[in-house]
Amino acid sequence: MFEIVAEKGRARAGVVRVGNITLETPAFLPVATKACIKTITPFEAKEAGCKAIIVNALHIYRRVYDIVCRIGLHNFMKWDGIIFTDSGGFQSIKKFPAFVDEEGVIFKMPDGKEEIFTPEKSMEVQRNIGSDFFFALDDCPSYPYGKERVKKAVERTIKWAERCQGERCFAILQGGVYEDLRRYCIEKILPMNFFGFAIGGLCIGEPKEEMHKIVDITTKILPKEKPRHLMGVGSPEDIIECVNKGIDIFDSAFPTRNARHGTIFTSKGKINLGKKKVKGDVIDEECSCYTCKNFSLDYLNYLFKEKEPLGMRLATIHNLYFINDLMRKLREEIVEG
Amino acid sequence: MFEIVAEKGRARAGVVRVGNITLETPAFLPVATKACIKTITPFEAKEAGCKAIIVNALHIYRRVYDIVCRIGLHNFMKWDGIIFTDSGGFQSIKKFPAFVDEEGVIFKMPDGKEEIFTPEKSMEVQRNIGSDFFFALDDCPSYPYGKERVKKAVERTIKWAERCQGERCFAILQGGVYEDLRRYCIEKILPMNFFGFAIGGLCIGEPKEEMHKIVDITTKILPKEKPRHLMGVGSPEDIIECVNKGIDIFDSAFPTRNARHGTIFTSKGKINLGKKKVKGDVIDEECSCYTCKNFSLDYLNYLFKEKEPLGMRLATIHNLYFINDLMRKLREEIVEG
Repeated sequence: MFEIVAEKGRARAGVVRVGNITLETPAFLPVATKACIKTITPFEAKEAGCKAIIVNALHIYRRVYDIVCRIGLHNFMKWDGIIFTDSGGFQSIKKFPAFVDEEGVIFKMPDGKEEIFTPEKSMEVQRNIGSDFFFALDDCPSYPYGKERVKKAVERTIKWAERCQGERCFAILQGGVYEDLRRYCIEKILPMNFFGFAIGGLCIGEPKEEMHKIVDITTKILPKEKPRHLMGVGSPEDIIECVNKGIDIFDSAFPTRNARHGTIFTSKGKINLGKKKVKGDVIDEECSCYTCKNFSLDYLNYLFKEKEPLGMRLATIHNLYFINDLMRKLREEIVEG
Repeated sequence: MFEIVAEKGRARAGVVRVGNITLETPAFLPVATKACIKTITPFEAKEAGCKAIIVNALHIYRRVYDIVCRIGLHNFMKWDGIIFTDSGGFQSIKKFPAFVDEEGVIFKMPDGKEEIFTPEKSMEVQRNIGSDFFFALDDCPSYPYGKERVKKAVERTIKWAERCQGERCFAILQGGVYEDLRRYCIEKILPMNFFGFAIGGLCIGEPKEEMHKIVDITTKILPKEKPRHLMGVGSPEDIIECVNKGIDIFDSAFPTRNARHGTIFTSKGKINLGKKKVKGDVIDEECSCYTCKNFSLDYLNYLFKEKEPLGMRLATIHNLYFINDLMRKLREEIVEG
């Protein structure tokens, strides 16, 4: 169930409730592709304010399917929050032994054997590993693309969506930067039985204005009463803008990847760590994360200079806290009008 | 002050007391060369049972001397335990822009400028950065070496030791695998004013029997009432054997480096992580470290398979806990007779 508790313009504050699960929105999901948020423990993620994460089902299937089926993904990685799982469709745009055809996503197992994620297989795997929320299998063409390729992807995504429907599943909407294809995809998928709708195929290289235009169009058409997920968006500015357009849930590797490369978000803007000119005691005066409470900017900067892995981890904790805190503030603003 | 509280054969249980500082021996110091135990926080090191660490003074001098002089090493790295500092002599055997001559250790600063650690300069730096225990500047030839080179190193080490004497300083004894040179070095350095004596120049490639032979000879000559430090030894078997020969303090990168490469110590022997055949729920039944309490062997093994940095960190915590627990048990055995 998804309930909207407050609105401000097009922005919404909501609650996702399924069984014991409660997720206040707007919410951000860090990426834990391989059942691990890179460099940090699940306990640290929780302390940094994370309530839900997104794991790649295809990766789990290829690497540790047996054991995860047996004990469940939550137990395997010791995460007691909410788990969303990616369907495997996204793999089509990654360097990975995978490609897409009419049947589904074809990939190689570590032993070289070819296998296929059909829509049904992707759902089965996501269910078997104990995910809380699934994504439908989609075809996500890599950028730059031609309109013909995107059109084919939309047709496939619609056909596959039909076979993925379910009460815990988000449909994925494709259509690239093409308004007509986006509208067509939405029109076909809207009547289907999904928990919510995810905007896919953005933030993969297209100009930022195009991304915002498509989010704008899409959120205007989507039904109010269902949660809206935007895939791949994770910068503070983009999140703020997209919350104001009516997005409820985000997932992205942006905050964690930036952290590992030494870029942290602060209340006064970005800091690029590992540089001589970065100096000071306090990392971010307004932040109460584990890193800011315990370490100085000088030390964190030094760790990056020296390429000490501890630096990546402390920066990851900080960036996740920063983004989660941003989500909390955005929600507060909406609730308070 | 060093007090022996119990003896069993040649093994000793002691207490180092200086100011507010108390260190029960036998004790193990993990290596925090760059003011960071690789991959873990100082809080995790403490939770894993670490009471004292060893930092490289030359590294601090080359990289962050100004700030560390100003706020102190403890504050800079947020470690409230005991800090031992390496003099810089060890650099002579590392790939590093440093070499040794009669005057001291010559090295390049990051800007290319040449500088020198004379014995006095090394002491001054160790004092200025706020170390609790210093090591005298020594000349440690790299292995394999000829007897002539080691003889020269011994002469230098003796001359330099004279200029490093002090109540918080450990002398370093050199002499390679040569009994006569070792005896000569000890004879000359013993009368000097040092807090304790460290056996240097071992565990750098020589056969293990030679290492044990030299430790045996040395501990038989050293005065009972002063603490004995063995540099570079850190495997569980070697630690046990050397405690039984009368060593009080050890420092080594062995447990942490092994952890990062996926080798963990357990009550049932070593496990090499990242391998297909490694399976199971419990990492080490007899271990109560953070890693063993919170994660499964399957997950830890999987993290190494996937080269997830979290694995290195969890393994580091485990290995340090294991070694510290070993030290505790060894002490208990000595105290209980």
